[in-house]
Amino acid sequence: MLSGKILITGSNRGLGLEFVNQLAKCNNSPEMIIATCRKPEEAMDLQTLANTHKNIHVTKLDVANEASYGSFVDHVKDLVGSTGINLLVNNAGYAPKSTRINMVKWEQMQETLLINTIAPLMITKALLPLLTAAASKSCIDGFSVNKAAVINMSSVLGSISANAQGGLYPYRASKAALNAITKSLSLDLQHQYILVASIHPGWVQTDMGGKNAPLTPQESISEIVKTLSKFNEEHNGGFYQYDGKQIQW
Amino acid sequence: MLSGKILITGSNRGLGLEFVNQLAKCNNSPEMIIATCRKPEEAMDLQTLANTHKNIHVTKLDVANEASYGSFVDHVKDLVGSTGINLLVNNAGYAPKSTRINMVKWEQMQETLLINTIAPLMITKALLPLLTAAASKSCIDGFSVNKAAVINMSSVLGSISANAQGGLYPYRASKAALNAITKSLSLDLQHQYILVASIHPGWVQTDMGGKNAPLTPQESISEIVKTLSKFNEEHNGGFYQYDGKQIQW
Ligand SMILES: NC(=O)c1ccc[n+]([C@@H]2O[C@H](COP(=O)([O-])OP(=O)(O)OC[C@H]3O[C@@H](n4cnc5c(N)ncnc54)[C@H](OP(=O)(O)O)[C@@H]3O)[C@@H](O)[C@H]2O)c1
Ligand SMILES: NC(=O)c1ccc[n+]([C@@H]2O[C@H](COP(=O)([O-])OP(=O)(O)OC[C@H]3O[C@@H](n4cnc5c(N)ncnc54)[C@H](OP(=O)(O)O)[C@@H]3O)[C@@H](O)[C@H]2O)c1
Repeated sequence: MLSGKILITGSNRGLGLEFVNQLAKCNNSPEMIIATCRKPEEAMDLQTLANTHKNIHVTKLDVANEASYGSFVDHVKDLVGSTGINLLVNNAGYAPKSTRINMVKWEQMQETLLINTIAPLMITKALLPLLTAAASKSCIDGFSVNKAAVINMSSVLGSISANAQGGLYPYRASKAALNAITKSLSLDLQHQYILVASIHPGWVQTDMGGKNAPLTPQESISEIVKTLSKFNEEHNGGFYQYDGKQIQW
Repeated sequence: MLSGKILITGSNRGLGLEFVNQLAKCNNSPEMIIATCRKPEEAMDLQTLANTHKNIHVTKLDVANEASYGSFVDHVKDLVGSTGINLLVNNAGYAPKSTRINMVKWEQMQETLLINTIAPLMITKALLPLLTAAASKSCIDGFSVNKAAVINMSSVLGSISANAQGGLYPYRASKAALNAITKSLSLDLQHQYILVASIHPGWVQTDMGGKNAPLTPQESISEIVKTLSKFNEEHNGGFYQYDGKQIQW
């Protein structure tokens, strides 16, 4: 299981909501779950969960709005105190419906790169002092998501080598770029023992994945939790699917 | 050598200028070289070259300005006529000087992704009818840059597997995303026999590469020209350095 103080973006629905749900309901629920979303006032499922699990803190964050990062980080600092954040899950994401080259639009590229690529990097930068604090204060040796980690929700569609179908320019480009960021972060932060990895959750039944997906959010997240809890130095800077299998870039 | 009608972006200095120079001065100079740059009126070296080589057409293009694409494409159509463009080289690029995570800025990410990722995709989309025309009218069998091709100037810094130094978030992310686009384009356009590949020019003495780079623009471009002229079906969707050696994503 996962422990410590965990922050998950895009927690109002889909994989983010299920992640919060499983963390809240497990036997050794983590000390604190900061569940961020764009519109807390409309996040009914998340609010219902938070009403019965006092370690969930629903917090407002539009990851695409850099101007809001300052007050967001101040609020998170007040919540977590001097021991910082152990695990940041950059989960919020966006997938436009475009397919082939003739359909792709400039604004789609910009928006998708903003949400899936720039935002996870800049959120990580903004929360880095809190991750550093957690890493330096943890009594766990080496690399562990229970000590200090950044997990980027990527996608196998961002794997350039696995691409056999083409199309999906905004989404594929944004997740490949996110994977490049994962790798650079893992190298820049390794001296601080902050683990960084990309995860592909599988093809999952959410608004994004659609009804034909083979996995339920419950299945995907329960595998991801198991996989993350086994992560060590070897996994730093890597790309893994929900069940722990490595994916090529 | 390369033949047909070739369009190169960012042709006023660095690798783009040297590419135009070598194509213009070789024995069998291609039928037409459309050398684009942001400010033709200030592109002295390129204008000097064009004065003595009538197959060079200096054409204005700021790749980051989508609003200008319409009139640009109309102009190119008038230049090339019904046989289209054989080779598009997406060479224009930008590398901010940022290094580690604490230095990276939101606007840098946006600007670098705009120039290095979104622009090459959208230029390719805008010129696709002219590439399709060239592919369908060429009498060359199979895949060849002399028939129809898109070459994206990428960088080994965009290789996620080769990244051992970290940092350089905007540039690395933008070139990894460009590589993802190369792969999708190669699959979407293969039925039209349009070859698409990413090239790493080596570390080269230009404004971007700096004075300590081991290669001169002359060396890099003469190798690239040799490499491109050997490209066939096997190279479609791949990532190669100047001398033809394959690079992992
Ligand atoms: N489902 C799959 O099959 C699948 C496969 C591979 C990868 N993934 C990745 O897994 C992650 C979660 O996907 P999902 O299936 O749960 O998607 P989803 O059901 O569409 O949910 C997307 C989540 O991201 C949030 N979000 C979007 N833009 C945001 C912004 N600017 N600020 C804050 N939150 C924002 C959404 O909030 P709002 O409700 O406010 O829009 C929502 O909470 C994504 O990164 C996705 O790319 C999913
Ligand atoms: N040099 C190296 O070591 C190296 C290594 C790997 C990859 N590369 C890649 O090779 C390509 C050429 O690099 P270089 O070394 O020749 O760089 P450079 O000397 O800095 O030249 C960059 C070129 O791109 C143009 N450009 C930038 N933004 C533009 C825009 N918005 N619209 C149109 N043109 C624009 C510049 O035009 P202005 O003069 O108007 O700014 C200039 O012509 C780039 O894609 C670069 O990433 C270079």
